[in-house]
Amino acid sequence: MKALVFGGPGQRAWTDVPDATVVEPTDAVIRVDTVTICGTDLHILGGDVPAVQKGRTLGHEAVGTVVAVGAAVTTIRPGDRVLASCISACGRCRFCREQRYGQCTGGGGWILGHLVDGVQAQYARLPFADLSTYKLPPGVSAEAAVLLADILPTAYEVGILNGAVRPGDTVAVVGTGPIGLAAIVTAKLFSPAHIVAVDKADSRLEAAKQLGADVLVRADGNPLETVRALTDGLGADVAIEAVGVPATFELCAAMVRPGGRVANIGVHGKPATLHLEDLWIRDVTITTGLVDTYSTATLLTMVESGQLDLGQIVTHRFALDEIMTAYDVFARPAETGALKVVLSSEAPA
Amino acid sequence: MKALVFGGPGQRAWTDVPDATVVEPTDAVIRVDTVTICGTDLHILGGDVPAVQKGRTLGHEAVGTVVAVGAAVTTIRPGDRVLASCISACGRCRFCREQRYGQCTGGGGWILGHLVDGVQAQYARLPFADLSTYKLPPGVSAEAAVLLADILPTAYEVGILNGAVRPGDTVAVVGTGPIGLAAIVTAKLFSPAHIVAVDKADSRLEAAKQLGADVLVRADGNPLETVRALTDGLGADVAIEAVGVPATFELCAAMVRPGGRVANIGVHGKPATLHLEDLWIRDVTITTGLVDTYSTATLLTMVESGQLDLGQIVTHRFALDEIMTAYDVFARPAETGALKVVLSSEAPA
Amino acid sequence: MKALVFGGPGQRAWTDVPDATVVEPTDAVIRVDTVTICGTDLHILGGDVPAVQKGRTLGHEAVGTVVAVGAAVTTIRPGDRVLASCISACGRCRFCREQRYGQCTGGGGWILGHLVDGVQAQYARLPFADLSTYKLPPGVSAEAAVLLADILPTAYEVGILNGAVRPGDTVAVVGTGPIGLAAIVTAKLFSPAHIVAVDKADSRLEAAKQLGADVLVRADGNPLETVRALTDGLGADVAIEAVGVPATFELCAAMVRPGGRVANIGVHGKPATLHLEDLWIRDVTITTGLVDTYSTATLLTMVESGQLDLGQIVTHRFALDEIMTAYDVFARPAETGALKVVLSSEAPA
Amino acid sequence: MKALVFGGPGQRAWTDVPDATVVEPTDAVIRVDTVTICGTDLHILGGDVPAVQKGRTLGHEAVGTVVAVGAAVTTIRPGDRVLASCISACGRCRFCREQRYGQCTGGGGWILGHLVDGVQAQYARLPFADLSTYKLPPGVSAEAAVLLADILPTAYEVGILNGAVRPGDTVAVVGTGPIGLAAIVTAKLFSPAHIVAVDKADSRLEAAKQLGADVLVRADGNPLETVRALTDGLGADVAIEAVGVPATFELCAAMVRPGGRVANIGVHGKPATLHLEDLWIRDVTITTGLVDTYSTATLLTMVESGQLDLGQIVTHRFALDEIMTAYDVFARPAETGALKVVLSSEAPA
Repeated sequence: MKALVFGGPGQRAWTDVPDATVVEPTDAVIRVDTVTICGTDLHILGGDVPAVQKGRTLGHEAVGTVVAVGAAVTTIRPGDRVLASCISACGRCRFCREQRYGQCTGGGGWILGHLVDGVQAQYARLPFADLSTYKLPPGVSAEAAVLLADILPTAYEVGILNGAVRPGDTVAVVGTGPIGLAAIVTAKLFSPAHIVAVDKADSRLEAAKQLGADVLVRADGNPLETVRALTDGLGADVAIEAVGVPATFELCAAMVRPGGRVANIGVHGKPATLHLEDLWIRDVTITTGLVDTYSTATLLTMVESGQLDLGQIVTHRFALDEIMTAYDVFARPAETGALKVVLSSEAPA
Repeated sequence: MKALVFGGPGQRAWTDVPDATVVEPTDAVIRVDTVTICGTDLHILGGDVPAVQKGRTLGHEAVGTVVAVGAAVTTIRPGDRVLASCISACGRCRFCREQRYGQCTGGGGWILGHLVDGVQAQYARLPFADLSTYKLPPGVSAEAAVLLADILPTAYEVGILNGAVRPGDTVAVVGTGPIGLAAIVTAKLFSPAHIVAVDKADSRLEAAKQLGADVLVRADGNPLETVRALTDGLGADVAIEAVGVPATFELCAAMVRPGGRVANIGVHGKPATLHLEDLWIRDVTITTGLVDTYSTATLLTMVESGQLDLGQIVTHRFALDEIMTAYDVFARPAETGALKVVLSSEAPA
Repeated sequence: MKALVFGGPGQRAWTDVPDATVVEPTDAVIRVDTVTICGTDLHILGGDVPAVQKGRTLGHEAVGTVVAVGAAVTTIRPGDRVLASCISACGRCRFCREQRYGQCTGGGGWILGHLVDGVQAQYARLPFADLSTYKLPPGVSAEAAVLLADILPTAYEVGILNGAVRPGDTVAVVGTGPIGLAAIVTAKLFSPAHIVAVDKADSRLEAAKQLGADVLVRADGNPLETVRALTDGLGADVAIEAVGVPATFELCAAMVRPGGRVANIGVHGKPATLHLEDLWIRDVTITTGLVDTYSTATLLTMVESGQLDLGQIVTHRFALDEIMTAYDVFARPAETGALKVVLSSEAPA
Repeated sequence: MKALVFGGPGQRAWTDVPDATVVEPTDAVIRVDTVTICGTDLHILGGDVPAVQKGRTLGHEAVGTVVAVGAAVTTIRPGDRVLASCISACGRCRFCREQRYGQCTGGGGWILGHLVDGVQAQYARLPFADLSTYKLPPGVSAEAAVLLADILPTAYEVGILNGAVRPGDTVAVVGTGPIGLAAIVTAKLFSPAHIVAVDKADSRLEAAKQLGADVLVRADGNPLETVRALTDGLGADVAIEAVGVPATFELCAAMVRPGGRVANIGVHGKPATLHLEDLWIRDVTITTGLVDTYSTATLLTMVESGQLDLGQIVTHRFALDEIMTAYDVFARPAETGALKVVLSSEAPA
């Protein structure tokens, strides 16, 4: 079988690898039907995630068809069309018992395309399949479903639910790449009064508008003033960091009202400055988090019923064996306008 | 009447001032029976709180006897013995309606000894008296009650409740001055498995032990390792910052387990470094806050019933007109061993 | 001035009464611009609320213009257009401090048109005006605002928030009179997957559909089966009782899934049977409640921004002095199709 | 091997049965070291639980030593001393994912001694062993641990946590048999101001006092008045029903203050009357529930550290093969004074 293999910083190849097989009784193997590329994959190629070893198949977001299951797998069976979640869950450790699957200490967590081979391949082994895959209802397209593997639950859990968005709130979303856009879409589930989108790129702000942001501000256009003007000078109820650099985090912390909440989604490589000399007295709550995917089943229901429409987040479509090109397109969003790129194998017989 | 008046950085005097009178219909005036000095008063004297103007009477923690009330005051009357809370609440603004009295935008919040004259005086005017004073039950001593004016609700609300301490938790309290000690006492209300006290001074660690900490670590004795050893390497469930400098905040952030909570109580003058490159993935919640005093009535009940014993936090006692000396003692804790110093006028007739 | 005066069971008259005046320093007096009639007013006329004495002016839902305020009122002034809430709040008692204004023990709670004269009059005295009135933004119509005096916050707080409706939930609303319809409108703020409306009258089910219910069931059409069929046999996540008779409460209790919630809004005159022999093991939460109106300010913002459209709940409009006729129409909904009837004085100059 | 076998209503025998063996890859088999009898076992013998078939081995609370595990069991192994919880959890269904293990739809829930053979036997098969057993630390006695199999987590989760006991609360516990006593012990973890114990038997009230209740009332001694006198006439913050008959439930509902909570633990065989004509306006929350055992690991930690001392709940001790006598003693508590009876096999070599 073919897979997209990491060869060290800057190195990737679509190449032959050993076939995926069931190793543990809790494993499943899927034929990959649809897969996407995550910003994290680019970080791995940039050498920022040293835990990823040379030879590792990348990818942690896929839809596939089950071809084999281990003896202890009870909830899916060969032929089922499933979502392969970015998070695997042993289901037994203290964190999994609390649905904090992202912190699994029993061998799960974010392992696909990281500590074990991932899903940018023709076939993939999925550990702990019962708790890490979701059977797809017939009416859900693979393209909609693959966005549930990571970005939708990440934006919803780490952004909207950690941020405790409430009806009538003013919510600022700083960074409107794919995750920020997913935060806008899922924030709307709680009927905020305003969603303020902040980004450097006009094209991304335009996408934010189409998905539901009602106030758009360029990052260099004084977002702090914009938010204050909307809120009697108090600040946003919730600020969602969806970039991952110190400046945007610090903007979020400055932007919330007394009693407000900063929900960090961004993947950070450097420390930020926390202005405790201002914040100590302002009743601010700051949360960080890796997605746990406890919301995936609920989100899937909402996609099925038409409550969540994410179509516009997918900007480019490729065949699976065009994945080298797809990476090139995805890595240069300023030029290509790429948000999410989706790759598909031939349709199942 | 006499009062302790701020004369600019480094300047204070026990001197004559105009009598306190009822100005607004919601005011009360008390004769001050018992008062204490807060670390914040030292910050004011150090020039760190520029909003405090020369001529201001300091002090925001007192027990007194009501001598006059305005026309709109309905819950207390002359002769009542009351606690004067450090926070005044207009009761009408959006923050007061949510019991976020510390953030009052209607003229309250922390104003006593800050924006209006305070309670280190023979008499004091208390704005918004209905929501800012608490009638004392007969069995509660003035010395116990005065600790409810600030440090007890601060430690409980901003530390223990914001930190969401739960039975069985491991709680680290970093800094065991008066506020940290109050955090230890109120943490015990939720039956944590361990309370780890961290401080630079052995005498304060000893006080922490007597009030309920079961693990003591000197700040230079690797508290991180101590906490990890107690928690299978995971970290504390809750870390409470009760110092107010970057190093202790950063220790707290490093000390909590995945899913853990950092509750900042410390008053900070400088920014801290937030290691988002580690924390982004660890599901950490960080809270800051000024006390709101929504818990004061409940804490008063618990003092009355003997559930909260804070006596050991008071190390020195003075007559009210010895306040200049009391400041001297309180300002040099390393020498004097001072935790809280309490001053009393003559007993009411 | 004229007012709608209760004359004992079955007796009402639009008649001369003494002018409303400021009595307490916390009072305001308004000229009534717009007022509505509540089902509770009919209960009073039916003799079901013995606390209401002969001679009492009825009514607890109005929009008006302030004509006078007491000395301690600080948030509104003559000329302001305000919403007069059905709940008055002293702001000082333990319940008011927790925003449980409906349970006020300081002289407030539901008093208008109950224990003190109400707002179905040309002028009205509003006790505790600072906490019991809401200044209206210019863009909000009186007709929209008057629905915020009672039914909107009641449905939202006692139904939707007590019921803890979440995105993706299946919510059953049993009874689709004005309160049930308001529950449907406010449930949508949390993006449930399904809203199942249950009523005896097809016309009310039709109104439910237009306001957002996606599944309609007649009360005699096996609503239990309908809900189970939608939910894999488990039951609704939340069932909202909006009638006030034993049968509908018992239907709600039978209708929720394990772990589900029953939120009672209905005003009951008789006990219901609680089938603990089934429910003890099913992890059910049942809540009751009087509205507190803590959500009124937020709901007002949402009306202003167009997020809440309740227009269709108002079926009949009258001049204020036609109130005797308006009661007749409102009291016979099966014939008249009345949901809410709104009465208006002449427009302010 | 020998087991206590149900032979239909009124019939039980300690008799030979086939050996317990591993059937599913997720099973474990234990040698039973310590076991106890539950009030529910008496209900089964009374014929009240028709799902229990003749020939079923009873019992759902044990401590044992693992003798065999299935291929998919990863967290325990032969030789481990474990607690066998009354609830088995498949770990995969929607309810298990939310830690609502008691409602498991994947073949678990309360099955031991109910739908599959139980633990009143020399050996027992434990389905879903990874999520249904807890490895015991060396310092925890079997007698203390066996109380964690059911009564401790039941009282804590369904009573104290569902009831949301808070520091300073007045908590009424109605019924002070083993479950009520366990509610008293675990209520204390949250430092209520008062624990009011209500029972018909003076001996049980005495036990309640020794375990921490500070106010004792006989059921015929006007508990309603007692609670009101303690609470300024308002009522208890939390009332915990630990009997299971209509009268005690109705007492609990009458006993709570506005905004209070009734947590039902009792197993009910008949409906109760819910006085909605009083309760609709009182902001009451009523919860029911089967234990989920999500708290077992935490409680085990607290037993280990000495925070929970339940020793006095065990009144009688027997050898395992004296189980017929033990049932006789347990079934006649009024005569024997029995609370919990514990049976032990020989100590492990």
